[in-house]
Amino acid sequence: MKAITSRDNPVYKRLKALAGSTHQQRKSGHALLEGLHLASAYLDVAGQPETCVVTDAALKHAETQAIVGRIDEHRIVTLPDALFGQLSNVVNGVGILLLVPKPEMPLPERVKTSCIVLDGVQDAGNVGSILRSAAAAGISHVFCAPGTAYAWSSKVLRSGMGAHFLLEIHEDVAANTLIECLAMPVAITDSHAAQALYDCDLTGPLAWVFGNEGAGVSQDWRDAVTHRLTIPQPGGMESLNVAAAAAVCLFEQCRQQRARR
Amino acid sequence: MKAITSRDNPVYKRLKALAGSTHQQRKSGHALLEGLHLASAYLDVAGQPETCVVTDAALKHAETQAIVGRIDEHRIVTLPDALFGQLSNVVNGVGILLLVPKPEMPLPERVKTSCIVLDGVQDAGNVGSILRSAAAAGISHVFCAPGTAYAWSSKVLRSGMGAHFLLEIHEDVAANTLIECLAMPVAITDSHAAQALYDCDLTGPLAWVFGNEGAGVSQDWRDAVTHRLTIPQPGGMESLNVAAAAAVCLFEQCRQQRARR
Repeated sequence: MKAITSRDNPVYKRLKALAGSTHQQRKSGHALLEGLHLASAYLDVAGQPETCVVTDAALKHAETQAIVGRIDEHRIVTLPDALFGQLSNVVNGVGILLLVPKPEMPLPERVKTSCIVLDGVQDAGNVGSILRSAAAAGISHVFCAPGTAYAWSSKVLRSGMGAHFLLEIHEDVAANTLIECLAMPVAITDSHAAQALYDCDLTGPLAWVFGNEGAGVSQDWRDAVTHRLTIPQPGGMESLNVAAAAAVCLFEQCRQQRARR
Repeated sequence: MKAITSRDNPVYKRLKALAGSTHQQRKSGHALLEGLHLASAYLDVAGQPETCVVTDAALKHAETQAIVGRIDEHRIVTLPDALFGQLSNVVNGVGILLLVPKPEMPLPERVKTSCIVLDGVQDAGNVGSILRSAAAAGISHVFCAPGTAYAWSSKVLRSGMGAHFLLEIHEDVAANTLIECLAMPVAITDSHAAQALYDCDLTGPLAWVFGNEGAGVSQDWRDAVTHRLTIPQPGGMESLNVAAAAAVCLFEQCRQQRARR
């Protein structure tokens, strides 16, 4: 365990540069997991972090000790509260974060179970909420097209609540590359579609494509669509928030699958 | 139409104080509606704003002219871009906002159709998303318990996408006051509940209570619950984002009502 006390320490400077910039995190392929829940979820599935950063105050709590006890000692650095505060995105957090390489997996040759494509979803809260719904619905693979928010940014991680560690997330996946791997129909929601979500058989595998908050699904994916579905909305709104629409679709699929069993 | 060019102008100073503080907006019972979509939605249902603020540049666009043309001339002030920018919450916005009194309606004596209670939902994006889903699902009344994000803050308005103008939103409503007005069962989601959402008859009116992101539903509302429902989640997550859960519940109710018709 190493104590860092100076803001000029090179390890601290690197952490600070990453903490302050989602762009830097994406470029270097790293993520900062803050808090006990994310740290514990990471250790459960992925092994050792690159670095564990913890405050002296946090080390006094039994829950933090339990997490820190699972990490190789040479990977742990302690920071005074003031220095930690500049890395933190959480108000009143416990004072622990892990610097980890973003999990990188090769694109599967053939995707055979239901999956999700995020086609330019921009808002980090929406991406996190969709990942959380996907993991809850038993989805394994999420593919992010270019233009989608960085899935491993602090804000997406926070709103994902650990879903990242139950999913295989592939980023910067071009439509034409992915479409060749998909052994299943492709579905989008479209308020002008003729078929209601509830009238479509969703019990088989489906690739759900969710588009940008403003522009919707891109032309490349529109061309690949086999199922254009509408969520019937008795009220006067034109559309739902994309994460709300995703939840409705994924859990309607779960409902139909459960009813069939 | 009045041109304001100085940041010391009292009207501008008041606008700036409101724009910079959700607390001030809540205290004075006002909202700032930025952009053509919200402005137009307001004018459609609520009549004249207190003040319409517009940039000289925005006035050159036909869409802005169409909105401004619906507003009494003495209510319109123009601002240079730099001054408007300090009121704006929108990146690359068009340069129009309305200052409006928050619509205040008396609490209904008896609520007879399905409604929503936001019991301490804190995140503005979640509140906006739930309002949008509620309006889409044909809900008329939303009641916000103390501790819920201010429903008329800029961020909630933005994520609500006009839902505010299709709903009656009552804020700071205490549980005991509201419970007496509700002529219907009260439902919550609970991951430990025995009854699956899909197995419960949701075709009649229901009061849906959605709780705080961390602490869930408060004891006052737990005591009033008649339906504890679980959303079956085949994946490994414990729970959904509250706005995602709300969308699943509201549209499962819509689905059942549609199936019965």
